[in-house]
Amino acid sequence: MSNAIFNKQEFLEIWLGNRKLTRRVIEVYPENELFSFTIGGMRDFGHLCAELLAIPVPSLKSIVNNKDAELYEKPSFANKEELLKLWDAAEKEIIDLYNQIPEERFNDQFLLFKTYDGIIKHHFIYFLENEIHHRGQAFVYLRALGIEPPFFWER
Amino acid sequence: MSNAIFNKQEFLEIWLGNRKLTRRVIEVYPENELFSFTIGGMRDFGHLCAELLAIPVPSLKSIVNNKDAELYEKPSFANKEELLKLWDAAEKEIIDLYNQIPEERFNDQFLLFKTYDGIIKHHFIYFLENEIHHRGQAFVYLRALGIEPPFFWER
Repeated sequence: MSNAIFNKQEFLEIWLGNRKLTRRVIEVYPENELFSFTIGGMRDFGHLCAELLAIPVPSLKSIVNNKDAELYEKPSFANKEELLKLWDAAEKEIIDLYNQIPEERFNDQFLLFKTYDGIIKHHFIYFLENEIHHRGQAFVYLRALGIEPPFFWER
Repeated sequence: MSNAIFNKQEFLEIWLGNRKLTRRVIEVYPENELFSFTIGGMRDFGHLCAELLAIPVPSLKSIVNNKDAELYEKPSFANKEELLKLWDAAEKEIIDLYNQIPEERFNDQFLLFKTYDGIIKHHFIYFLENEIHHRGQAFVYLRALGIEPPFFWER
């Protein structure tokens, strides 16, 4: 394992730990602001979450099955309860699909959503970065709404 | 390299790529709002940047030299020009210090700032996550100020 800083399992744990923190943000987010509150013309938190659901599972399925996928970023949930159910279902699928991808493929090139070309592991780190980025924005929304966000370092 | 998803050099590149994106945010941030604009009682962007400068180099020095460090999060810059100079100087130091840490040490436990105990590589991923998190918040500040942030995927 020379040169290995993060192996396959460790990266998954970092990713899942971050998804747990985002789940906490969903839990404290006010239901009535899910599709309404916004700052500076940005998307509301519901639509940011829809994006965070639209990317990982369809991407992993696409990679596992070597098939194209469509990026469908519209919310398929109407409230927090439905969102949390989708969030938890996605976690199970992420674990299952991720584990099906052999390490040898992590350095392969893969075209995601017929648009984003890159090495598979770079797609994965991008998913993580994208989630942290939007969750950081959600922290501002929460603060602006007078609600204390969860501790950032809790996973 | 079995199991290696991200090796030492690759992780550094991800980190530096993210610092480049944060630099772009600093570049477009309005000078006159650096220490004033805030949302929901949060810190202004200048203070967020001060934190992002306070952590990596002192941590890496602490690890390289096996010495305690103090967390000093107050801005030591008065404007964007000075901030950008510190940002670029920090990049050079990060590269130099990071490269001095042998891979064997990445799994060692290390107490940072006399407070944060953890495995060295987990400290590093936390630095990355923390920067993405605060930069995500800065994107909201920019949007609220009517300024277009840089493209998130540019590195």
